[in-house]
Amino acid sequence: MIKIIPNSTDIQNLKGKSATFLLALSNTKTADIEGITQAGIPGLIHLTPTLDAEFLASGEVKSLENIAETPKGVPTPALITRAVHLLKPFHALEFLDLGLEKIPQIENKIYGFNIHPSNRIDQHAQIDAHALFSLARSFGKSYKPKSDYLIIGESTPSGTTTALATALALGYDANEMFSSSFKNDPTNIKQEVVQKALKHIHPSDSILDKVSKVSDNMLIFTSGFLMGASENGYPIILAGGTQMAAVLLLINALTPNFNAENIALFTTKWVYHDSHSDILGLLNMLDFPINAYASEFDFSLTNHPALKLYDQGEAKEGVGAGAALIYAELNGISKEEITQKVESFLV
Amino acid sequence: MIKIIPNSTDIQNLKGKSATFLLALSNTKTADIEGITQAGIPGLIHLTPTLDAEFLASGEVKSLENIAETPKGVPTPALITRAVHLLKPFHALEFLDLGLEKIPQIENKIYGFNIHPSNRIDQHAQIDAHALFSLARSFGKSYKPKSDYLIIGESTPSGTTTALATALALGYDANEMFSSSFKNDPTNIKQEVVQKALKHIHPSDSILDKVSKVSDNMLIFTSGFLMGASENGYPIILAGGTQMAAVLLLINALTPNFNAENIALFTTKWVYHDSHSDILGLLNMLDFPINAYASEFDFSLTNHPALKLYDQGEAKEGVGAGAALIYAELNGISKEEITQKVESFLV
Repeated sequence: MIKIIPNSTDIQNLKGKSATFLLALSNTKTADIEGITQAGIPGLIHLTPTLDAEFLASGEVKSLENIAETPKGVPTPALITRAVHLLKPFHALEFLDLGLEKIPQIENKIYGFNIHPSNRIDQHAQIDAHALFSLARSFGKSYKPKSDYLIIGESTPSGTTTALATALALGYDANEMFSSSFKNDPTNIKQEVVQKALKHIHPSDSILDKVSKVSDNMLIFTSGFLMGASENGYPIILAGGTQMAAVLLLINALTPNFNAENIALFTTKWVYHDSHSDILGLLNMLDFPINAYASEFDFSLTNHPALKLYDQGEAKEGVGAGAALIYAELNGISKEEITQKVESFLV
Repeated sequence: MIKIIPNSTDIQNLKGKSATFLLALSNTKTADIEGITQAGIPGLIHLTPTLDAEFLASGEVKSLENIAETPKGVPTPALITRAVHLLKPFHALEFLDLGLEKIPQIENKIYGFNIHPSNRIDQHAQIDAHALFSLARSFGKSYKPKSDYLIIGESTPSGTTTALATALALGYDANEMFSSSFKNDPTNIKQEVVQKALKHIHPSDSILDKVSKVSDNMLIFTSGFLMGASENGYPIILAGGTQMAAVLLLINALTPNFNAENIALFTTKWVYHDSHSDILGLLNMLDFPINAYASEFDFSLTNHPALKLYDQGEAKEGVGAGAALIYAELNGISKEEITQKVESFLV
């Protein structure tokens, strides 16, 4: 049978289609708080988005000798996205500098907007959210990929902390629904930071006033971008887990009757099955319907101890890994091929 | 990949599941207007729902010697639904008497509510829509099929005329969007009747006041039934074309933020491809999203001249034929099997 009212993001409509991969890169000084994230090298967490961009674009890290790793040796999900890109290249890899400490040394297109890293949220993030949102929306309206659809991912260390603070500041009952790069989330530190951040919120604050205090540049920019770009009609894949769900929650707070029929969220199995967070719960808080899919890929075919940790609940998502895995499946790339390609980066 | 937020009516969730088929039967005296419908035997159009019910339930018509045919010999779509029921029986066949001239002579369950046939809409339909809607909603809340899901179809001669009048009375810009049992719709007669009907509408009328004047029992009852039954959580298939779209338009007028996630509309290829009507246009007028599917079945495998007329645009839909065809496909019944079974009724 034929679906009479198909969404452009219904999975069967994306089979074999070409995709541009756009990676939103951002630093928040929230990541400098001791023990709050393991998305990177201790002391050099701020380099993670820069290194992710370099590895994804070139297969090498220029700004550091080794690629970003967590203390137990879980390598960045950029490995997965890079592996997929080698097996079935994206039409283009492009980057958004949404306030980086260090610009990636790559030849790909990097869109720059003179945005600075945002402040620690426990000390007021100091983001001009009105200007940033407006800029992002205009940029989204003008952005048209030269491929069938767009995938937008992110690399923002401590982004789940700022996402949690954002959702709570906007009045969503979202405690314990956000993921973490840790298997055992350092809840106490995170909760303490979030509680301090929320003290800056006044009941009379507008929605954008609130996020200017407790959110991050990636989250605000991606919300504005989606609101602008979704008017263009091409399918857009929001590539990520609970952070990208928070992007949708911000849109929902601003526009409860938002038309998300051109948008879908793609994430990993590790996020979907994570018992410490609740992506489904977050998406169900939206007043508008949206397509959302989780990859079924896991590392059951590898013996590499660092990759095995993914299946045990470390790392989970980032750099659009879940969307890259679904894109691979839609293009006939097998689990074996992806596993072997990721392994090849680690020997 | 896995769909994170599946609707219960997403097609893959209905594969191989059991269904109860509920057929809403109704007479409106609008069908007595000369030349307005070809859904039945001239002079005996009012018997069509009765005969459809008898043929669907037993394979025989008790209240007449031959099954309902149109002048050119296009047999009722009940043939299709009956064929599917023989190939892959519904869990149960049940009937709603929503104002019949003559009760079908069958052993199946017929729900009766002491409803009388409604009046000609050009002379004011005289339906107590408030009482009927309220009754239907209560019945819907209490109705729980003993199968995985419910299919609700209809047999209501001249129902597309009353559906058109209903949509226009409710303020939808729906002219020329409604189907007809004719290939060449007798638009002049229909338009004249609808225009006369609309003269009874006052701007101050409530929604239910309006439909009490220009609609039919099936349309009002099915709207109320869906609003009640959809709270029960099981999937419900609205089986029909533009008449069933009008059911949704009435729900939309009453409750624009209606939650239709448990409901889908299933119809035929003939309705979906009909150049004289616009099922997609009608569904797009809804403020709430809804799943809708069209069967791809046609009579390309038969040489029977009466069946060939379907492919030429006569008959198109009714007695839940489109939903029966999709139910058959979801249960692995082939086009060949259905064609042969329908042919077997005609030799």
